[in-house]
Amino acid sequence: MVSTSASPSLSPFEPVRRAPLSVLVSRQMRELIVSGVLPLGTALPSEKALTEQFGVSRSTIREALRILQAQGLLSGGDTVSTARPQVSDRHVVESAALALEAVLRLGQVPLTDLVALRVVLEGAALEHAASDPGPEAIAEARVLLDAMRHAATAGDVAAFHTADVGFHIAMVGAGDNVAYRLVLGVLREAIAVHLLDALADLAEPAAVLGQLIGEHEAVLGAVEAGDGHAARHQVRAHILGFYAAHGQAGGTP
Amino acid sequence: MVSTSASPSLSPFEPVRRAPLSVLVSRQMRELIVSGVLPLGTALPSEKALTEQFGVSRSTIREALRILQAQGLLSGGDTVSTARPQVSDRHVVESAALALEAVLRLGQVPLTDLVALRVVLEGAALEHAASDPGPEAIAEARVLLDAMRHAATAGDVAAFHTADVGFHIAMVGAGDNVAYRLVLGVLREAIAVHLLDALADLAEPAAVLGQLIGEHEAVLGAVEAGDGHAARHQVRAHILGFYAAHGQAGGTP
Repeated sequence: MVSTSASPSLSPFEPVRRAPLSVLVSRQMRELIVSGVLPLGTALPSEKALTEQFGVSRSTIREALRILQAQGLLSGGDTVSTARPQVSDRHVVESAALALEAVLRLGQVPLTDLVALRVVLEGAALEHAASDPGPEAIAEARVLLDAMRHAATAGDVAAFHTADVGFHIAMVGAGDNVAYRLVLGVLREAIAVHLLDALADLAEPAAVLGQLIGEHEAVLGAVEAGDGHAARHQVRAHILGFYAAHGQAGGTP
Repeated sequence: MVSTSASPSLSPFEPVRRAPLSVLVSRQMRELIVSGVLPLGTALPSEKALTEQFGVSRSTIREALRILQAQGLLSGGDTVSTARPQVSDRHVVESAALALEAVLRLGQVPLTDLVALRVVLEGAALEHAASDPGPEAIAEARVLLDAMRHAATAGDVAAFHTADVGFHIAMVGAGDNVAYRLVLGVLREAIAVHLLDALADLAEPAAVLGQLIGEHEAVLGAVEAGDGHAARHQVRAHILGFYAAHGQAGGTP
């Protein structure tokens, strides 16, 4: 939308494009779903009825339904079901997360940029969480901190990593901002593989894992004490410190 | 991975689910694309060859290709093309924005949460940009600020909105963090529709547009002066002030 002023076109003509029928059908249905005309739980008409209503072939209808299922807007997207698909939002967040993951992975985002984004977002989410931490998420974080201690004792780096990722997700979930959770969930997935590599490469895992546990305890303590400022700074130091010491944050992922 | 400890299941059985073939095919291809095994620009084999390689019917291949096109990962998603689809990222941001928009409109992410996310991200991006602003992005922001002035004089709210969105994208692009740019690009699209509604509803547009122009000037000035702290605070006040006065940020969209 900006390019007009940046690179004005001398021709008044725009290419005429004909969209595939299945795309036109899926766009029409998508708009009816997200605008609430077809509320959640609505069962769609049969394929045969849709074929007649849209005036297109059965395979076009099938393609359109698959598109909507891939967008997380219809039930049955991940199962072979004999039931008629229903309007659903069960997979819409997952679908958005997958789309964002593709943007980040195809965007050739350097790991440093991803880590900077994570520091800012996770800091904000924890500051938010500290103002009114949900007790269930805090309890879950405690369980995961215990799991980290057990994994460190057993020298099980993979188990440590799983508990570590879970801990951060639980802490972010201790606040009630859905948007932070959604983006950080995607971001953690995109970064997790690098974290696991870095942990697996540690020459002296015991000392490092012990230090990481202490840092996680400090983050949890700050959130529980309602000190958002401290929580933000603790998590920032924790993340940047780890990548400075053990990550390949200087290079591309 | 966390739910096991939170809600232990007494049964060792998990439901067996059979996914549709087109979903299995599209998942396999998606992973090859986002992992870079199939680089951008790769032309896919013909439908017939894909049919043989995956051992499925031609209509299954077509459904799978439509899913990938809807995810923005193949060219030709919005046109009837006789050419073979190529691996592409041209529509992947748009597709993620649509997905996030659906999440927002179906009520899973309240607008307040998205606005909070935008404030944090945009503030961090501008703080980053101020440390070493790219001259091209600054020049583009100036052009868009002029476009805002012209639109305000003409009382053209839609043109103002377009320039406004472009200004924020240019300012975020003045820094060199790719991750901020990508996530904010998705986020802005999802929020834009509400911004335009709010602008269109203004009883006294001239005064409000004049104030917004002044706020944009202040943001641009802070970034140019290299004052990242001021830039962050200006953009925060600008965004939150607008939604407090004119948005429906208190409710769901």
